[in-house]
Amino acid sequence: MSVATLRFELTEYKMRLEKARNAMERAGIDLLVVTDPANMHWLTGYDGCSYYVPQCVVVTKSDEPLWFGRRMDANGCRRTAYISEDRIKWYGDEYVQSDTLHAMSALGAIIVDEGHGSSVIGVEKDSSCFSAASFEALAASLPNARFQKADRLINWQRLVKSPREIEYLRGAGKIVEAMYQRVSEVLCPGIKQSDLIAELSYVGTRGVDGYWGDYPACVPNLGAGADASAPHLTWTDQPIRGDEAIFFEFAGVHKRYHCPLSRTYYLGKPTVQIRDAEAAVLDGMQAGLERAVAGNCCEDIAKAYSGALARYGFEKTSRSGYPIGIGYPPAWGENSASFRQGDRTELQPGMAFHFMSGLWYGDWGIEITESFLITEGEVEFLSSVPRKLLVID
Amino acid sequence: MSVATLRFELTEYKMRLEKARNAMERAGIDLLVVTDPANMHWLTGYDGCSYYVPQCVVVTKSDEPLWFGRRMDANGCRRTAYISEDRIKWYGDEYVQSDTLHAMSALGAIIVDEGHGSSVIGVEKDSSCFSAASFEALAASLPNARFQKADRLINWQRLVKSPREIEYLRGAGKIVEAMYQRVSEVLCPGIKQSDLIAELSYVGTRGVDGYWGDYPACVPNLGAGADASAPHLTWTDQPIRGDEAIFFEFAGVHKRYHCPLSRTYYLGKPTVQIRDAEAAVLDGMQAGLERAVAGNCCEDIAKAYSGALARYGFEKTSRSGYPIGIGYPPAWGENSASFRQGDRTELQPGMAFHFMSGLWYGDWGIEITESFLITEGEVEFLSSVPRKLLVID
Repeated sequence: MSVATLRFELTEYKMRLEKARNAMERAGIDLLVVTDPANMHWLTGYDGCSYYVPQCVVVTKSDEPLWFGRRMDANGCRRTAYISEDRIKWYGDEYVQSDTLHAMSALGAIIVDEGHGSSVIGVEKDSSCFSAASFEALAASLPNARFQKADRLINWQRLVKSPREIEYLRGAGKIVEAMYQRVSEVLCPGIKQSDLIAELSYVGTRGVDGYWGDYPACVPNLGAGADASAPHLTWTDQPIRGDEAIFFEFAGVHKRYHCPLSRTYYLGKPTVQIRDAEAAVLDGMQAGLERAVAGNCCEDIAKAYSGALARYGFEKTSRSGYPIGIGYPPAWGENSASFRQGDRTELQPGMAFHFMSGLWYGDWGIEITESFLITEGEVEFLSSVPRKLLVID
Repeated sequence: MSVATLRFELTEYKMRLEKARNAMERAGIDLLVVTDPANMHWLTGYDGCSYYVPQCVVVTKSDEPLWFGRRMDANGCRRTAYISEDRIKWYGDEYVQSDTLHAMSALGAIIVDEGHGSSVIGVEKDSSCFSAASFEALAASLPNARFQKADRLINWQRLVKSPREIEYLRGAGKIVEAMYQRVSEVLCPGIKQSDLIAELSYVGTRGVDGYWGDYPACVPNLGAGADASAPHLTWTDQPIRGDEAIFFEFAGVHKRYHCPLSRTYYLGKPTVQIRDAEAAVLDGMQAGLERAVAGNCCEDIAKAYSGALARYGFEKTSRSGYPIGIGYPPAWGENSASFRQGDRTELQPGMAFHFMSGLWYGDWGIEITESFLITEGEVEFLSSVPRKLLVID
């Protein structure tokens, strides 16, 4: 506990723990196994690229949170989380990628030891850090426990940000702004995609205005020409071509907090197709942003966006936004609410979202997005980059 | 099929498919659900940052491989994989982060449709892209199937590299070399960690000698001073201090192929402790490298390394190496063999490994590693960076 560098006051972590426990109680869960790295970080501060092996934070009604991970990562816990020494439990390397041993069996034994073997145990069953084998091993070692799905239970608690979290998000917004500034400076026909990504990553990692750049949960995505039909491609060394559109989606990141932003550039004279799409997206976003008011719901934004698109003859079949905050690979979305039909999550001051208004078709696409905070009044944009098709002639 | 940019000849993909099918037959598996993104890429070329939602490649004894993923990612499949149009199957966004629908149920329905509902189905149960919920949904939708663990089944097929794969690995090696060159140029007391990482990432992304830099499966890890006790920490804006050791672990990457490498620097006059550790690690590596000969086993390298360490009074409790090649977040290890006691995997020409010889203690650590290829004769190092404690005075 003494050596850890914490990014929030201890009181904030205690408040988060309290929120988690209240949510557990409402769900009838005695003990929660938290495997999502973003949830682990939010609860305890734990940080490190160790999420490729089983690890978790265990929360009960009254015990101090317990960190469980690989032996070599225990020091990382000591240096980043507020967990006290006697609550740091590890497994040896014989459990790593073994066909016969599984770390989650060792966790099961600890849970029995601590007297929780007959509890109602919540697990994040759809977390990318809780494999089918993890669940089987845990369940087999806890024959008297009753398991309950607790996907997104912690994620929902993360929706409303604290003042310090908002400060980190604003820092991330300044960073993504600087990254787009750099793109606008260097983007030209002939430049290699990889050289361009090197430039914006350099700016993103150095950071700006005293906000240093942390690593993004997902590397920059881009789509040039027909590749813009696919939202999740990464770069090659292909030169940027003139007379075509290219979109970028990347995030500024500060202390694990993400501000994603997409923009589409056109090198040359834009086609009628892309200009039409730009008009539809911008009108739709304006309509959506006007509904982004405390008291409204997530689906109100989605409906306003879809409605405006429809008037231009466009359709968006995927959700048009999601909450942002702490992110770890493979994605920076908070995995709780979505801007889509049927999502009645009430917008509250302190919530942060990425309005992911991108459209993708057979051989083209367009992405112009915004990340913003819900406030008592109008939305607060986390970054200021001209919201339009950016033309470089 | 026509628009895809493939990184290997079609014949190489067909050979990989053949290897996969043979392994399936040996394991008694009729149909394999491949969820590990590196395995998907190896089998089909599919590439994209879409592994945060359910997706897979399905391999059977005779059907063409099937790609299954989110609707918006189908174009990414068309542009990166050799999968033909009628074998691209997608699910809609209503399945994304839903409490009631799961994409794997839709896959189950497809498997039934194609007449494989009563098959023996292999699943990568411990893959980070196959959650407990994924397995439950798949199993529930295939009540007549028999499921079998197929963890690492494809990973094992990836061990011996083809000539083109070796070329990509050598490119990655040149890139990591250039990244260390940059570190040596800019590392000095006072430089912020984030600025230093920006420099090496810039070089790593631009690439070198015609090899462009792809993104690493794991961002640079570093440990300065007491933080060197923890292997998986990332950077902050803390300034580098004089008179202490700092280690780095990062990879050069070309076309998804990784060459990881660690080095420890000392700014000032090294302490006796770090010099002793350096001597132990270098002697141990020399002993291990001498056993890295075709026909020997993975454990021979581990034993030689541990034996030499013991003579200096050091001990390594974690494995000391793993195979490398294609990597996707969260880690670049191939997840099959390990340099550790009991691993009798026979070394063969064309295998590539990261000799991860790092040592971590209570308040310090040291990492000096090598990535190499097994050949008919001596090992071929993938990069050439002085193998020693790098002192900057």
